[in-house]
Amino acid sequence: MLLENNLTQAKNGDKIDALGYAVAHKNDTFKPFSFKRHAMGENDILVEILYAGICHSDIHSARSEWKEGIYPMVPGHEIAGRVVAVGNKVSRFKIGDYAGVGCMVNSCGACEACKISHEQFCENGKVVFTYDCLDCFHENTPTYGGYSNNIVVHEHFAVNVPQNAPLDKVAPLLCAGITTYSPLKFSKVKKGDKVAVAGFGGLGVMALKYALYLGAEVSIFARNDIKKNEALRLGAKALYANTKTCKERFDFIISTIPTAYNVNNYIALLRYGGEMAIVGLPPVEDKIQIDLTKLVFTAGKKVYGSLIGGMQETQEMLNISVQNKIYPETEIIGINDINIAYQNLTSGKAKFRYVIDMSSLKA
Amino acid sequence: MLLENNLTQAKNGDKIDALGYAVAHKNDTFKPFSFKRHAMGENDILVEILYAGICHSDIHSARSEWKEGIYPMVPGHEIAGRVVAVGNKVSRFKIGDYAGVGCMVNSCGACEACKISHEQFCENGKVVFTYDCLDCFHENTPTYGGYSNNIVVHEHFAVNVPQNAPLDKVAPLLCAGITTYSPLKFSKVKKGDKVAVAGFGGLGVMALKYALYLGAEVSIFARNDIKKNEALRLGAKALYANTKTCKERFDFIISTIPTAYNVNNYIALLRYGGEMAIVGLPPVEDKIQIDLTKLVFTAGKKVYGSLIGGMQETQEMLNISVQNKIYPETEIIGINDINIAYQNLTSGKAKFRYVIDMSSLKA
Repeated sequence: MLLENNLTQAKNGDKIDALGYAVAHKNDTFKPFSFKRHAMGENDILVEILYAGICHSDIHSARSEWKEGIYPMVPGHEIAGRVVAVGNKVSRFKIGDYAGVGCMVNSCGACEACKISHEQFCENGKVVFTYDCLDCFHENTPTYGGYSNNIVVHEHFAVNVPQNAPLDKVAPLLCAGITTYSPLKFSKVKKGDKVAVAGFGGLGVMALKYALYLGAEVSIFARNDIKKNEALRLGAKALYANTKTCKERFDFIISTIPTAYNVNNYIALLRYGGEMAIVGLPPVEDKIQIDLTKLVFTAGKKVYGSLIGGMQETQEMLNISVQNKIYPETEIIGINDINIAYQNLTSGKAKFRYVIDMSSLKA
Repeated sequence: MLLENNLTQAKNGDKIDALGYAVAHKNDTFKPFSFKRHAMGENDILVEILYAGICHSDIHSARSEWKEGIYPMVPGHEIAGRVVAVGNKVSRFKIGDYAGVGCMVNSCGACEACKISHEQFCENGKVVFTYDCLDCFHENTPTYGGYSNNIVVHEHFAVNVPQNAPLDKVAPLLCAGITTYSPLKFSKVKKGDKVAVAGFGGLGVMALKYALYLGAEVSIFARNDIKKNEALRLGAKALYANTKTCKERFDFIISTIPTAYNVNNYIALLRYGGEMAIVGLPPVEDKIQIDLTKLVFTAGKKVYGSLIGGMQETQEMLNISVQNKIYPETEIIGINDINIAYQNLTSGKAKFRYVIDMSSLKA
């Protein structure tokens, strides 16, 4: 009945009723929340959400750890579902197609960055994030994410997902996948390279899998030993509990660590000319910094940040992942389990990626 | 008489008398200081110092701004002079040759880094810096730098200087030259690249000249406007007083700034995929750091430290500099003027590189 109602709204150009799970403030737990999506534009698609991944960013955002959040907040930017309505000018999707939505839902489309599909760096500052953002293309209304039954999005910001792909596995690719794929490609990781993955959660697993796909030899840094067997089973060469015990030197290090740590200790493990990509963002209050003096004395080692990836690259990542069956390690949960999932992710107890089966969301 | 005495000592395998200018503690001014150089080994050369540049590192070291200094301290690692004695096994120098000595005087010679002539990164930790260092190859005696009349050095750590080269201009190449040449080469700066030089002192001038030699278009960031005409005269395209007023984006930025500044503001001026090399080292107490969160949000911009250069590269830099007459802007001073020179360098009043004419040093 909900869906039928949505289809009528889409047809009539009305706002779209949505149901999700939200927190009302930074110390709140998730509870059901009814809200409206903006009306369908001619380039928009309406996606019935089937699966949504839980990303560590969701926790940082829900708890206002990066900035003061916009509440009520419905997080979620790892979204996979089915297209149920399309605007007049939509060309890449038809009703019934599978679609994925990641961290962005719009940008200016006109600047140099947007033109080369680096939409996340929109030079006009008009990138609209999937949740916890004011949508400058829709009267600055707040955006709401994927812990919900549907989403309306400009087709440019949705990726095509083949019909044979397992949607529960596809969902986390939209953030964890692209976030790790992009820097591996940016740093031109190739066969035989020695790669280290720091932090072995949802992103770390994907980094391991893509690095192996590219032919690299991969070591893992994880704060506890519990994940050792999992890492070895997935193809890692070694697991280190910390940087002190490591005598190797790496061509490339990707840090997915979302909590406080000493960045310089990892930079020091690069070979001369090696590169380190930072994709994990600890809470701002942790004030994680790179010491300049140490950077100079461990010279010739490049460090940079990496922020998801553009839409063109996201589609490329998705195609490669599906073709080569490079998927996250997931645990499917019901929407009522979000609160427990957050606890487990924060304490490090979570094994890998939680994915919400949206059929558990009842009106 | 002094030199004759030294030659006898060299011949007899005795320690070599030396006369220099030293500070006795971190708040001291420079005063004459007599000391001994270690005896000549079979691979060593004895160099009569004719010119020594004053580097900002000398000030940081003399004032214990990076670490607690070893006193009395004779700074100076931009040394040019004449070979007056050679050990039995010396092959690259003969008496009468010109030689240059830079920041290092020894290293293990056996590790992977030393083997590829990255001696400054000696993996056995045996790199011996030219001054303010305990020489592990000579009973941990302190090393003394170039503000003096002679130096004894393993021939591997001296560069050949053509007889037609102006030694007063060559001296600063041994630190300012190699420190800026090395990262420009490491980042593969090429014709048409947009380069920015942050800090326009002794190092900044050399960075400008090498970048122009490589065919780049160069902008300068300098804390005051006084140097504008000088920068334009030397071929700079623009001079910026700070990062705020700059709308350009650069392929490469080299920071030679030796005082407190906001590194992230410069990183943000790189184009996507651009690189920033840090070669200036502010005092440790300034705690200059790179903010990790900002680094991630200004993604795709690589930053690294660069520390002088290896001996092979130093020789290459010297050959290119002499062939193309790429020389520092210098002001020749007497050894009694060191204290004033330090004041001028600290206050930003110094124009460019002070070079001590060692003929002013009287026994």
